[in-house]
Amino acid sequence: MLTDLLTASNPLPEELDERLAAQLAFVVEVDRLKTVLRQSPLAAAARRENDAEHSWHLALMVILLAEYADEPIDVGHTMALVVVHDLVEIYAGDTPLYDTVGAATQEARERAAADRLFGLLPADQATLLRGLWDEFEAKSTPEARFAKALDRLEPLLLNWMARGGTWRTPGVTAAVSRARTSAIAEASRALGAAAEAIIGEGERRGWVASEA
Amino acid sequence: MLTDLLTASNPLPEELDERLAAQLAFVVEVDRLKTVLRQSPLAAAARRENDAEHSWHLALMVILLAEYADEPIDVGHTMALVVVHDLVEIYAGDTPLYDTVGAATQEARERAAADRLFGLLPADQATLLRGLWDEFEAKSTPEARFAKALDRLEPLLLNWMARGGTWRTPGVTAAVSRARTSAIAEASRALGAAAEAIIGEGERRGWVASEA
Repeated sequence: MLTDLLTASNPLPEELDERLAAQLAFVVEVDRLKTVLRQSPLAAAARRENDAEHSWHLALMVILLAEYADEPIDVGHTMALVVVHDLVEIYAGDTPLYDTVGAATQEARERAAADRLFGLLPADQATLLRGLWDEFEAKSTPEARFAKALDRLEPLLLNWMARGGTWRTPGVTAAVSRARTSAIAEASRALGAAAEAIIGEGERRGWVASEA
Repeated sequence: MLTDLLTASNPLPEELDERLAAQLAFVVEVDRLKTVLRQSPLAAAARRENDAEHSWHLALMVILLAEYADEPIDVGHTMALVVVHDLVEIYAGDTPLYDTVGAATQEARERAAADRLFGLLPADQATLLRGLWDEFEAKSTPEARFAKALDRLEPLLLNWMARGGTWRTPGVTAAVSRARTSAIAEASRALGAAAEAIIGEGERRGWVASEA
């Protein structure tokens, strides 16, 4: 939590005005999201996905899959939610979907990270980004519910392509996977049915266990 | 150009309806964007950036820096442009900003790639994504001009943090860097001035050459 800012060792030119300098220092700092590894294996290469890649993937999925939201959503706002949703992991780290130990401290860790990270921005933008993150976490709008659904659907697709992936985490079964991805059906009947098709067929093929 | 689709070796469950199956196969295929390496070094790690990370970074910059656009822009639409803008590089590869040889064939390679990639989608969405990509390339709207500006500004920030980065490409001088990033000032006087501050101070420090 107490790491120096990336720009601490190499400040941006002094002639930038204070507001823009703070914004650009934040833009540099969030480069760290590219180094936060998730558990999911890529479909296109033999390595794990990072948070920046994942966030981009969700943004594209918003554009392509918005038609399946059961409640009308604003596409641009939903994209803003997914672009921002993992930023706190820069300081709090990724808590894997199937990590029940990390989940116990996740909320407190992420709130402290949000205070520090968003506090780097001018006050109005700190409020804006904190608001987007809170909205996503609370699933308090149709856009947030759909964003959360995509956040659960994308790793299912990666597990399918890996013929297992994080489904092979000890203790994970098809029932556990269904429970952890229930947010999909909450926001979209069609995508919920697709998730069930993927998990069900994955279970039949032995890529996710039927019993613990 | 003739690589099989990622889902060719592992098709998605058959029970998905045709439209959703095409959309999800596209979502899987674009995982490849995470493997397209750019020349820019990350600020947060000792490796080069990939296109998916870069596209995410631009989307966040749209949210934070939209206030500096000289013409009013729709934030959501600008995010859609940057999320889609590099997709054709999945098949066409990245053409570095300072690569004049690659630039000669870039347009033809990217048009062929766009035909193939967007052709995977249902027709209405193929048209939508092709339209976003064409709009970005042609800089035909305020949103496209601002998106292109950010596409030029982000590597300048990474070069600054690397104390050189792609500025050290043979043949690149401060004048070349100014010419290649002129799209920034075309869309935003404030960000154009920031870019000039970064290049000018980079030149004074010897991170980008004054003369070839």
